[in-house]
Amino acid sequence: MYDLYYWTGIPGRGEFVRLALEAAGAPYRDMARIKGDGAIEALADRVSTPSFAPPVLTDGEFVIGQTAAILLYLGPILKLSPRAAKPRLWAHQIQLTIADFVVEAHDSHHPVGAGLYYEQQTREAKRRAREFREARVPRFMDWFETILARNPTGSTWLVGRRPSYVDFSLFQIVEGLAYAYPRLWAALADGYPLIGAHRARVAAFPALQPYFRSKRRLDFNEGGLFRHYPELDA
Amino acid sequence: MYDLYYWTGIPGRGEFVRLALEAAGAPYRDMARIKGDGAIEALADRVSTPSFAPPVLTDGEFVIGQTAAILLYLGPILKLSPRAAKPRLWAHQIQLTIADFVVEAHDSHHPVGAGLYYEQQTREAKRRAREFREARVPRFMDWFETILARNPTGSTWLVGRRPSYVDFSLFQIVEGLAYAYPRLWAALADGYPLIGAHRARVAAFPALQPYFRSKRRLDFNEGGLFRHYPELDA
Repeated sequence: MYDLYYWTGIPGRGEFVRLALEAAGAPYRDMARIKGDGAIEALADRVSTPSFAPPVLTDGEFVIGQTAAILLYLGPILKLSPRAAKPRLWAHQIQLTIADFVVEAHDSHHPVGAGLYYEQQTREAKRRAREFREARVPRFMDWFETILARNPTGSTWLVGRRPSYVDFSLFQIVEGLAYAYPRLWAALADGYPLIGAHRARVAAFPALQPYFRSKRRLDFNEGGLFRHYPELDA
Repeated sequence: MYDLYYWTGIPGRGEFVRLALEAAGAPYRDMARIKGDGAIEALADRVSTPSFAPPVLTDGEFVIGQTAAILLYLGPILKLSPRAAKPRLWAHQIQLTIADFVVEAHDSHHPVGAGLYYEQQTREAKRRAREFREARVPRFMDWFETILARNPTGSTWLVGRRPSYVDFSLFQIVEGLAYAYPRLWAALADGYPLIGAHRARVAAFPALQPYFRSKRRLDFNEGGLFRHYPELDA
């Protein structure tokens, strides 16, 4: 039994961990939903290896934070990462690049600081979102399309012939992008056929269907990483 | 023999890798300094696992990018990471948090986008730098001080009783912060005695002395991650 600690109310970075746990059918408790967000700080207070921020996963006495590190740890246990060491590192490298994209997606609406409301930084957000739309999203999507194209075993999954946690994470950021920047994504999607096919493949992934239909799967919303503000998607 | 690919002219993220290689006395070539920055793109063009951005390390045919992933790979080989799997993951988790800090330090002078000059975003940078100085730096430094304090084997190094690559990386960001925000750091340093002692310990680390005296060690400058703009340190 795993315990996942992440803010309630948003999919956020916790969702990358949830998708892996759910795809593997692994039992876990979403602790903040059971005990409230205070459970996150209470955990940090009592361990010698407190995480800087959630998500945090506990597996018995073992505590680990940082989304990509959690997935690096869980991948082999859940059989959702490549078996050999070097492809496993490649999957991790992709996950770290997804993490970089997530920061940029968040900062497109919060360029001044997460401690201020969006309404306190709309002017700056409009400039940053333009850079994000015109320069950064194409650069990241070009890269994802390229690595799918260059997978020597075919473009079905990101690493090797089998699905790994990083496939679910790519799906999640494409979903997030399409939610937050629907106009942008509508204009770009045709240029990324491998990403589009990959997104549809994860959306139809059999082991995730019960989760997608459940209340455990949270919708994107304007408290999260991917937010839809029409003025930023102009 | 390792080949490191990173932009010439700035310490940047390449420096975290260099510090580990140099501390271990490992032989490596700094490829862009030999062949020019074009070597970075040429490498990405010819491999099936191109990195999104440098630094990239090659070890024979193996290619790996993302600073923290490179260090995760090198750590055991260079004997600069904990031997047991779980402390090794903890070191990696700290490195990922250092990577998060690096993004925020960079974005304090480039809040709108890396594709624009600082002079095109000074207004936004002043607001972001204030958030960085007042909220983010204290939060990160509180965390580093706390994890040093909570190391069950003593506060000499971050993980366990022996130095690991993450110690050199913490040193590098504290050096960077003191360079970019000297007024801020002068005001804060007394509150972080363990970080201060740790910084002095790495500065005096015997295996790094030849490197620190060499031309291979680049100074911080206003093309890099940590930039000194007095108006941002007001």
